[in-house]
Amino acid sequence: MDLIKKSVTGMKDILPDEMELRDYVVSLVKEVYTSFGFQSIQTPCVEHIENLCSNQGGENEKLIFRIMKRGEKLDIAGAKNENDLCDSGLRYDLTLPLSRYYSSNNAKLTMPFKALQMGNVFRADRPQKGRFREFMQCDIDILGEPGIIAEIELINATTTLLGKLDLKDFTVRINDRRMLKEMASSCGFDEERQQEVFIILDKMDKIGLDGVRKELTDAGFDAGSTDRYISLFEGAGDDPAKAAQLAGSEGAKKAAESIGSIISAVNAVKNADYTVRFDPTLVRGMSYYTGTIFEIEMKEFGSSVAGGGRYDDMIGNFTGSPVPACGFSIGFERIITILAEKGYRPSKESRKTVFLVEKGTDAEKLGRIMKEADELRKEGQTVRIDTMAKNKKFQKESLAARGFTDFREFFNN
Amino acid sequence: MDLIKKSVTGMKDILPDEMELRDYVVSLVKEVYTSFGFQSIQTPCVEHIENLCSNQGGENEKLIFRIMKRGEKLDIAGAKNENDLCDSGLRYDLTLPLSRYYSSNNAKLTMPFKALQMGNVFRADRPQKGRFREFMQCDIDILGEPGIIAEIELINATTTLLGKLDLKDFTVRINDRRMLKEMASSCGFDEERQQEVFIILDKMDKIGLDGVRKELTDAGFDAGSTDRYISLFEGAGDDPAKAAQLAGSEGAKKAAESIGSIISAVNAVKNADYTVRFDPTLVRGMSYYTGTIFEIEMKEFGSSVAGGGRYDDMIGNFTGSPVPACGFSIGFERIITILAEKGYRPSKESRKTVFLVEKGTDAEKLGRIMKEADELRKEGQTVRIDTMAKNKKFQKESLAARGFTDFREFFNN
Repeated sequence: MDLIKKSVTGMKDILPDEMELRDYVVSLVKEVYTSFGFQSIQTPCVEHIENLCSNQGGENEKLIFRIMKRGEKLDIAGAKNENDLCDSGLRYDLTLPLSRYYSSNNAKLTMPFKALQMGNVFRADRPQKGRFREFMQCDIDILGEPGIIAEIELINATTTLLGKLDLKDFTVRINDRRMLKEMASSCGFDEERQQEVFIILDKMDKIGLDGVRKELTDAGFDAGSTDRYISLFEGAGDDPAKAAQLAGSEGAKKAAESIGSIISAVNAVKNADYTVRFDPTLVRGMSYYTGTIFEIEMKEFGSSVAGGGRYDDMIGNFTGSPVPACGFSIGFERIITILAEKGYRPSKESRKTVFLVEKGTDAEKLGRIMKEADELRKEGQTVRIDTMAKNKKFQKESLAARGFTDFREFFNN
Repeated sequence: MDLIKKSVTGMKDILPDEMELRDYVVSLVKEVYTSFGFQSIQTPCVEHIENLCSNQGGENEKLIFRIMKRGEKLDIAGAKNENDLCDSGLRYDLTLPLSRYYSSNNAKLTMPFKALQMGNVFRADRPQKGRFREFMQCDIDILGEPGIIAEIELINATTTLLGKLDLKDFTVRINDRRMLKEMASSCGFDEERQQEVFIILDKMDKIGLDGVRKELTDAGFDAGSTDRYISLFEGAGDDPAKAAQLAGSEGAKKAAESIGSIISAVNAVKNADYTVRFDPTLVRGMSYYTGTIFEIEMKEFGSSVAGGGRYDDMIGNFTGSPVPACGFSIGFERIITILAEKGYRPSKESRKTVFLVEKGTDAEKLGRIMKEADELRKEGQTVRIDTMAKNKKFQKESLAARGFTDFREFFNN
């Protein structure tokens, strides 16, 4: 069989320049989130197929990379479908493994548990520009805290991080699943069909209020309900109290208070140049959310760079009893792309020196050269030691292009 | 289907304490190796099955986790063997992916290419204490440098790293595949059977010279050859020149000079308390090595913590033309275990404070609390904000056990 040079479809080799940026961002993420008391954890890339296919992953369950059984357990002749042949698969997100992790290890964890996860996830998606089948996710979650302290800390930690990456002009949009439901109910939408309503509302960014009205009408929803619903959004604007008043229910009022308190406390810190506001049209796809939902959007780059919310019911599926949970996931790959486009450079760069050593230099002299390099490294410099090439000019130019500014030559005599 | 709480067999959930240590070691590894001019790279966890099964992985090829084909490509009814059902698998090491990476990307890389890889690899090994099916490997490799500068830098970088982790009393053992062969040939062992000889010699640590003699005899090797071979090791000790003299060939002399020069230049730097010496009995398992081989051993912990060598032929299998290559892999998991056993703590630990906030605190006050926390964080402290528990004493005790020394309470009035 011939060897294949290219990486597997949809998964990429990461080149040194990008990796330098990634390493820097990873260390900054760990530094910032750790200062908020989050603790790094890690779960295996491989998860039980039973857990991956348990209807908690939504559309992602269609994108699983399945891992084959091995040895005697693999019965190819007797297999009828793919699940007969596999016992595990690659994780498609970090939330499901976190729920399993918590249910398995909670006796050893400090409550409430504040977890930081950075790890690769895998989705057998159709490959397309900027979307890969293996990519890094970066999640923070607070498990066991029912109050809004969780939401506030998640948002503050994340906006602090984005600020340290020199990102600005972004918007934190906040809504609450309870508000979504109360607003829909107050207009007369049946609870069973509200998920459909929300899927249409979720397109607001692209089609506007008129487009939402049209799609609701086309889907056969009651015209009076649709009209009331649209006017509700027009009346509420970005004022949660107004939205609650228009929806006119106790539930909406409670959700509005929660949203208002979060916005007010977040505004008290603000470590970056951004806006935080209530957005009654924010839906977020994942059906597991139960309360507050939020998303960070950067208009300049036309997409969200982080999203999350409260999901109080999910961990109970593992533990048997409910555990309040709230999480925030930054779009690590998206942020790397944005930083690379902006030509972002890590602030702390070391001086870079190259020692060019002529071929045939004896061991005694080599030792002295190594010792000199060692002293510069101890002062914080990066020192690369290379054999002097025949074409020294080209050699120096290509190293200079990589940021090496100082060259020293050592000859064999 | 019921959800499964435990992680998949042989792969572990990493708890916060261990993860803190791992994160610290990872950042130190990147810092030290980067100062030597190594560049981080990353390859996908998933590799083409053709590459994984190309006879370059030795025994590891029996331990592949295979990933099933998807969609129309998966033909369960027509499949005869497992390779009909899979198109890829999880990588079992970082060396094979590095060779593929280099062959695919070399036009974009700075030559010689000095690569640092830290990544998880997967082996469907029988699970046993301390050995996992997913574990981190940490490799540095220099590609395109035929001279001993490569060996010296790899060893200096790695011993500097171990020194920074407060590890001492270790031994760097060096040998050369060419010396191994010359010594065996000079005693009359047929080249075809030398691999067998080396497999027996490799047991020296456990069975001693007498054991090696016995096993060679039992395997039917010529008694005269065996006697000469044993006396050669007795005569050579740790002096490469002596070994070359006894073997009496030009090849052995060249290998001895190379080994001697490496040892001398490495001794000139020495950033840790360790010994470096020639060991003619060092074999190292992987058959792809072509020249110098080395290993770091810590007697105290009864095992090797790093190993590597020169493998000038492997990358040529991808590129079609030979590329000199030399690599060093530290046993990341082994080092974490050793550091944990020693109770090692990272030197730079931040002050850790907890804010306990009474339930029901209003948004305005919450904002002020968050702002105060923010100021401490800017000073470099870790500040955790928790809701005050009913059992405050227990709450404080469990946080104190995690290193939180300062507690501040904020009441709801």
